[in-house]
Amino acid sequence: MEDHRSSAFPHLTQSLLQDLTKIFHTVDGRPFIFPATGSGGWEAALVNTLSPGDRLLAVRNGQFSALFINCAERHGLKVDVIDVDWGDGVPPRQIETALKADAGHEIKGVLIVHNETATGVTSDVAAVRQAMDAAMHPALLYVDGVSSIGSLEFRMDAWGVDLAITGSQKGLMLPAGLGIICVSQKALALVESARCNRCFFDLRDMIKANQGGFFPYTPALSLLFGLRESLDMLLEEGMEQVFARHRRLADGVRAAVDAWGLKVCASRPEWNSDTVTAVMVPDGIDGAQIIDLAFRRHNLALGAGLTKMAGKLFRIGHMGDLNDLMVLGALGGVEMAMADAGVKVEFGSGVGAAAAHFQRTPAAHH
Amino acid sequence: MEDHRSSAFPHLTQSLLQDLTKIFHTVDGRPFIFPATGSGGWEAALVNTLSPGDRLLAVRNGQFSALFINCAERHGLKVDVIDVDWGDGVPPRQIETALKADAGHEIKGVLIVHNETATGVTSDVAAVRQAMDAAMHPALLYVDGVSSIGSLEFRMDAWGVDLAITGSQKGLMLPAGLGIICVSQKALALVESARCNRCFFDLRDMIKANQGGFFPYTPALSLLFGLRESLDMLLEEGMEQVFARHRRLADGVRAAVDAWGLKVCASRPEWNSDTVTAVMVPDGIDGAQIIDLAFRRHNLALGAGLTKMAGKLFRIGHMGDLNDLMVLGALGGVEMAMADAGVKVEFGSGVGAAAAHFQRTPAAHH
Amino acid sequence: MEDHRSSAFPHLTQSLLQDLTKIFHTVDGRPFIFPATGSGGWEAALVNTLSPGDRLLAVRNGQFSALFINCAERHGLKVDVIDVDWGDGVPPRQIETALKADAGHEIKGVLIVHNETATGVTSDVAAVRQAMDAAMHPALLYVDGVSSIGSLEFRMDAWGVDLAITGSQKGLMLPAGLGIICVSQKALALVESARCNRCFFDLRDMIKANQGGFFPYTPALSLLFGLRESLDMLLEEGMEQVFARHRRLADGVRAAVDAWGLKVCASRPEWNSDTVTAVMVPDGIDGAQIIDLAFRRHNLALGAGLTKMAGKLFRIGHMGDLNDLMVLGALGGVEMAMADAGVKVEFGSGVGAAAAHFQRTPAAHH
Amino acid sequence: MEDHRSSAFPHLTQSLLQDLTKIFHTVDGRPFIFPATGSGGWEAALVNTLSPGDRLLAVRNGQFSALFINCAERHGLKVDVIDVDWGDGVPPRQIETALKADAGHEIKGVLIVHNETATGVTSDVAAVRQAMDAAMHPALLYVDGVSSIGSLEFRMDAWGVDLAITGSQKGLMLPAGLGIICVSQKALALVESARCNRCFFDLRDMIKANQGGFFPYTPALSLLFGLRESLDMLLEEGMEQVFARHRRLADGVRAAVDAWGLKVCASRPEWNSDTVTAVMVPDGIDGAQIIDLAFRRHNLALGAGLTKMAGKLFRIGHMGDLNDLMVLGALGGVEMAMADAGVKVEFGSGVGAAAAHFQRTPAAHH
Repeated sequence: MEDHRSSAFPHLTQSLLQDLTKIFHTVDGRPFIFPATGSGGWEAALVNTLSPGDRLLAVRNGQFSALFINCAERHGLKVDVIDVDWGDGVPPRQIETALKADAGHEIKGVLIVHNETATGVTSDVAAVRQAMDAAMHPALLYVDGVSSIGSLEFRMDAWGVDLAITGSQKGLMLPAGLGIICVSQKALALVESARCNRCFFDLRDMIKANQGGFFPYTPALSLLFGLRESLDMLLEEGMEQVFARHRRLADGVRAAVDAWGLKVCASRPEWNSDTVTAVMVPDGIDGAQIIDLAFRRHNLALGAGLTKMAGKLFRIGHMGDLNDLMVLGALGGVEMAMADAGVKVEFGSGVGAAAAHFQRTPAAHH
Repeated sequence: MEDHRSSAFPHLTQSLLQDLTKIFHTVDGRPFIFPATGSGGWEAALVNTLSPGDRLLAVRNGQFSALFINCAERHGLKVDVIDVDWGDGVPPRQIETALKADAGHEIKGVLIVHNETATGVTSDVAAVRQAMDAAMHPALLYVDGVSSIGSLEFRMDAWGVDLAITGSQKGLMLPAGLGIICVSQKALALVESARCNRCFFDLRDMIKANQGGFFPYTPALSLLFGLRESLDMLLEEGMEQVFARHRRLADGVRAAVDAWGLKVCASRPEWNSDTVTAVMVPDGIDGAQIIDLAFRRHNLALGAGLTKMAGKLFRIGHMGDLNDLMVLGALGGVEMAMADAGVKVEFGSGVGAAAAHFQRTPAAHH
Repeated sequence: MEDHRSSAFPHLTQSLLQDLTKIFHTVDGRPFIFPATGSGGWEAALVNTLSPGDRLLAVRNGQFSALFINCAERHGLKVDVIDVDWGDGVPPRQIETALKADAGHEIKGVLIVHNETATGVTSDVAAVRQAMDAAMHPALLYVDGVSSIGSLEFRMDAWGVDLAITGSQKGLMLPAGLGIICVSQKALALVESARCNRCFFDLRDMIKANQGGFFPYTPALSLLFGLRESLDMLLEEGMEQVFARHRRLADGVRAAVDAWGLKVCASRPEWNSDTVTAVMVPDGIDGAQIIDLAFRRHNLALGAGLTKMAGKLFRIGHMGDLNDLMVLGALGGVEMAMADAGVKVEFGSGVGAAAAHFQRTPAAHH
Repeated sequence: MEDHRSSAFPHLTQSLLQDLTKIFHTVDGRPFIFPATGSGGWEAALVNTLSPGDRLLAVRNGQFSALFINCAERHGLKVDVIDVDWGDGVPPRQIETALKADAGHEIKGVLIVHNETATGVTSDVAAVRQAMDAAMHPALLYVDGVSSIGSLEFRMDAWGVDLAITGSQKGLMLPAGLGIICVSQKALALVESARCNRCFFDLRDMIKANQGGFFPYTPALSLLFGLRESLDMLLEEGMEQVFARHRRLADGVRAAVDAWGLKVCASRPEWNSDTVTAVMVPDGIDGAQIIDLAFRRHNLALGAGLTKMAGKLFRIGHMGDLNDLMVLGALGGVEMAMADAGVKVEFGSGVGAAAAHFQRTPAAHH
């Protein structure tokens, strides 16, 4: 294992930080890599730019936005929460209204989750930026992109995102263990004055050490080497191709859900996530049972409905290094698990609908 | 990499040779491992037990039996060939008749392929042994088990097999690079008198070196370590469970072929192979095109029809460490590739039939 | 990659937590695993047991104790620092005096580093506990064991350690990426009342999730699997054997330093670390140059002198899965690099002294 | 694992065959890769170019030349053997004399081992070619390069080698499992007429299949992928650099042997092998005991003296991906094992001599 204090090490660090900007689609933003997870990324984004008592505006439309809000509150921040139905996307209008009402600009930041993994809902970040601009409000825009960045279209500069947060284990196709954030120049300017206590996540140390290509403490070296590989893979394929590939696989999965006569959790088609599909189970069926049967009998890992949605849905992930056949196999597994659990499903109906879609729309080579 | 001449090495060798007898189902037979392939195993079996000019009786019912016969002929052996249709199994009656006609016992061995990969045909080895016994003929029984041993029922002692031949890359789930044979005591007694020229495949050196747990020349060490792992996996699961698992997956694949309205190459159900299914393509369709489209557009490796059967079929392998979802995915890929090639196929029909089978017959855990 | 929310996952978590207690030598202490590093472990230990404004007593005898103290200060804690020479161990007498002077028991904790990697100094934790007991002071004992636990004798219960902190990349022989702490019952009782802001490192969430064998957010799964392996290795060898092995290798390295006519940084023999030896370079020589030449010309990673000790020493690590030959090779590399840098060294003098030691004291087999 | 019959496979095959010519230093020669070992390579070279009863001239100067000769004899070839002392190189004069005496050109080939691993002797192949030319004799030149090709200077075309033989596990730094031969146009012209029986090693099938980039039977796929890597490594470093690197390490080892006051087996300095050094043990000491102690007590694999040389020497390999520190560690291990066995050796004497050499002659970077 290479030595993270050797004179050869900065070359790796600098290549990673350089190429991460292409994943975030930013020229001015500055990425940072922590030996942590996306949850650590939330904390890093908040504590380096805010002070205890600061006010935030946040939308809660699923389990991960609920946890992001909770993280802010634990650090002594006051969060005005806009609650919407789980299954809905972030409502730009309500954000605009709330910001307009904050004439004194007490609200320091807007917190949203780009892709709510818990409900399979992707929100329109560009529309949130437009709402903030329409309100002529200076708050920072904090966006959880843990399950979107590297898989779904994400444009930090174009959308005016100030703090973008992701992890290693989703779009970057690595084991969990890296929390990665990207920080706009506007947000970076606040690091010195932010008064939240911090040490492990302190950007001041990170900025200083990164300048020489080092880290302030031992980095997760094996994951940094892995990150080099996964960035190479993504950039070789091209981000537009990556987005299109996820769209195509997701369309196949949604064709299967239609064929089964079931509904997704996302309440409007424009909110359908291309990385995860949350399928509402029929009345009288326990989603948890389908998930358990899928795992125990068919070796298939489905996601559960969380808190409010517990038992009401199961989630099919379709992110990262998947191909058509793996998706078809997983859909076949869902059919079997649903049958096991008593759902009336015609075997092959969903798989066939997806196969028809995939066959009609040949995948680009990569 | 461990040293193959070290005092610690014999422990590995001896554990491998010991456990291989459980895979061959033999008490008296003695296994040997060559750094070669199954084709090398054919050669090892022949040249160590026969002399140039010796006569053999062989059944040719597919490409691999044709090559096995060719191997014998290249070593100066005379082979009486019983040709049957490709798609048929080995005919015990014809063997019995031929042996009975050989009153002088000039025929030194009977050569058959247990599982003809090229046509998806598994023959009845026990019936061949019965035929040989009925003819009261002392010929040795040579059985190619390259694509059966470790996956399909194989009972060396019960079936009176004298030379059983396999490789590392099929039922043993390793990369290619080992040719493994198992030799009955009756066959071993012939090693000294056999006059075929040989050196690399000479059992005399192998017997001598193996006694101390060594090899006469550098073995393929990385594959020996892998073999230790794969033997552990197979024996932990239990060979009966391994056989049942392959049967269950194969039944699913055959349900799919039925649902597509197609026929398998095996001309009778009792010859259906549980490790590979050869699917006859409809008139006017080129099997090679389906295979090419499956590979290029759907990332699916299908086997081709060989020589006589070129273009007439494609083969779906279902051997080794596969699970239900991988088989369903592959069947989905076949549906897409058939549609690409102009075959009329209802998407989901085959996958659904297989899923229905798998769901009705839950897999044992392993 | 296994799913960290599956019903099979708790088995792994529970086995890890159970076996970690054997590494910490504790019956009552409770271990926690964070997807972070040892530096994160410092933070976790502090913020879960203390409140802003709390007073601590700490010894600063090297770079890592300096950083540990800094971490406490950044979280709003007031640290009374006992500064001793870098190269000295922790002074139990001074701790006793300071605690006796704190009649009001304002000091909530004592912070020490068991093995100062920066100077190759191992302190006597048992003596610190005796000093605290002699002062009849209720402060908690916080011990950084990042470069000792899993390699050097560490007895949490016997030594009355309340917070023991380590990481994955030293004695546990894994890549960096886990911060592991072990918490006494006395310290656990403070978690609810501690008022330091925290979320990522909050033990409350960890306790709740660990009860079911889960984690509150995505764990560093690949490292957890690795931890299972490294715990198996350590426990199979036996911790006493692990300690003896490090002692033996360290004695060899120190014999080499003696043979070179050089001094170690540790100012007394009882403080010599068995995991790292810091070698003072002769006057007029720049330690950094030796390190750079070792790396560039001889492919050898030596540690540098940090801050105060920059240029004055180089460090030879001898921790984890090393054998005699690797140590001899490294010592040969040091000789070459010293010669490159102008140090007068007889080639073979240090390596020979170490070889003589190793040959006289055969290693136990493991 | 990629499919060896897929349309993508030929690209790999062709790149391997192309780059192997650079390792053999040939423009006209044609390489072939068998899933076997170097011993299989001997057989392939002989049986494809000779007929039973053909006469060969061979030099026996160590265990591997003895085995090569034995391989020829087992295939019905008559070998005139020139026996020289083990420790001597191949004698060009004696070859010239023998060939001149063969006025009828009955001798079809000259067999030599370039680098006798058993004695650490490298012979002068160019001088053998000159002797053959001086005798104006048309015999083919068969050269075992198993432990030289890829490490020591080897120039197939310049030296007029007709059959060059190697394996994967030495200079190519892979696990054992490939037998690789390179065949001159002159030798290729004999393949059709050669009458040795053969099938597994038959070049006719190999030539035919290789034309399309395929193999006549399953190749050792994992090793082919490994070969791609090792060829890339060697060619990136440059073969001249590879040769120089081995020379430098070998000089260090020989400096150690000198410092110990011992002798190598090679009877003249020009025969010293740069890949392996055979060290003669002092009278009254059993070399086998040193080897056993090195393995059991110091985790060091030394080679044994074989047959004639059993007990008289031990061998230190210094081939492939080694660096200075690994060699120094191994030499330290030899010192300890010699001391264990009762040899009087000053600890550090040999290691120091090697370190002095390495330090004086900095390694090129690669």
